[in-house]
Amino acid sequence: MADDVLFEFLHMEMVSHIYKDQASRGEMDKDRATCVSTLEGMGFRVGQGLIERFTKDSPSFKDDLDVMKFICKDFWINVFRKQIDNLRTNHQGTYVLQDNKFALLTQFSNGKQYLEEAPKYLAYSCGLVRGALSNLGMDCVVTAEVTLMPSCKFQVVIQKI
Amino acid sequence: MADDVLFEFLHMEMVSHIYKDQASRGEMDKDRATCVSTLEGMGFRVGQGLIERFTKDSPSFKDDLDVMKFICKDFWINVFRKQIDNLRTNHQGTYVLQDNKFALLTQFSNGKQYLEEAPKYLAYSCGLVRGALSNLGMDCVVTAEVTLMPSCKFQVVIQKI
Repeated sequence: MADDVLFEFLHMEMVSHIYKDQASRGEMDKDRATCVSTLEGMGFRVGQGLIERFTKDSPSFKDDLDVMKFICKDFWINVFRKQIDNLRTNHQGTYVLQDNKFALLTQFSNGKQYLEEAPKYLAYSCGLVRGALSNLGMDCVVTAEVTLMPSCKFQVVIQKI
Repeated sequence: MADDVLFEFLHMEMVSHIYKDQASRGEMDKDRATCVSTLEGMGFRVGQGLIERFTKDSPSFKDDLDVMKFICKDFWINVFRKQIDNLRTNHQGTYVLQDNKFALLTQFSNGKQYLEEAPKYLAYSCGLVRGALSNLGMDCVVTAEVTLMPSCKFQVVIQKI
């Protein structure tokens, strides 16, 4: 339990620092986009590092779906203590990962009250996923959407070259 | 293992972000002090939160030494995976906690090569300790010193009122 908290608290502080810092420079309009992209970038690099450790002893993957299953199960358990609850795909490179109780949103009260705040707390995790997939050779766009706390949907769209 | 890494990687990213960010503003002279104090502040708030969880089921403490022993053992194990190796005190409010293999320095090569970089990676942890002690009613100054990686000494000086 200590570990979750250690990571979660540091994550909260980091989000709050990055937003405060931006606000203090008085650049209000490019605010949100920059903060989200800063956090996403940090997550990306950490995701790259993590996946290298996590796949050290794994056999290689058959296909994209196989990779996504690894992300939903092993990766998610290691990082967020639970599996993804639901994985859907259109079999054309789009995957939707639903987590019904996303670790980094559990500190918010349930329901719609803090819905506006949610994107701040998802950017880092989107980056984690994108970084992990990138190191497995999949170039993706990862976005997240919350309609009701603490449930969350991550959409992964593979970029075909 | 995943957890250490999750926290360590995020910590590395955070340090690097805060230093880069400061550099990009071109305020070179107040650079170091500001970055250290930003990181220390983040650690302080996280330390306050952590100690509340860690002491939830603990009996109350007899005296300052008893608190310091808790920090060296339970707190350190929860946060850094090992106990403090050596605790010394002058019995007048100064404590020196020595960790012979400090978790956040193990990614550096041993020896003196990266000694200059060490303070960056200790500020957050100094804050953690100060925050934890502060919530236990002890107002302290916490500093850290490295003479040979990855060993590290934290000095805690209790501020008498």
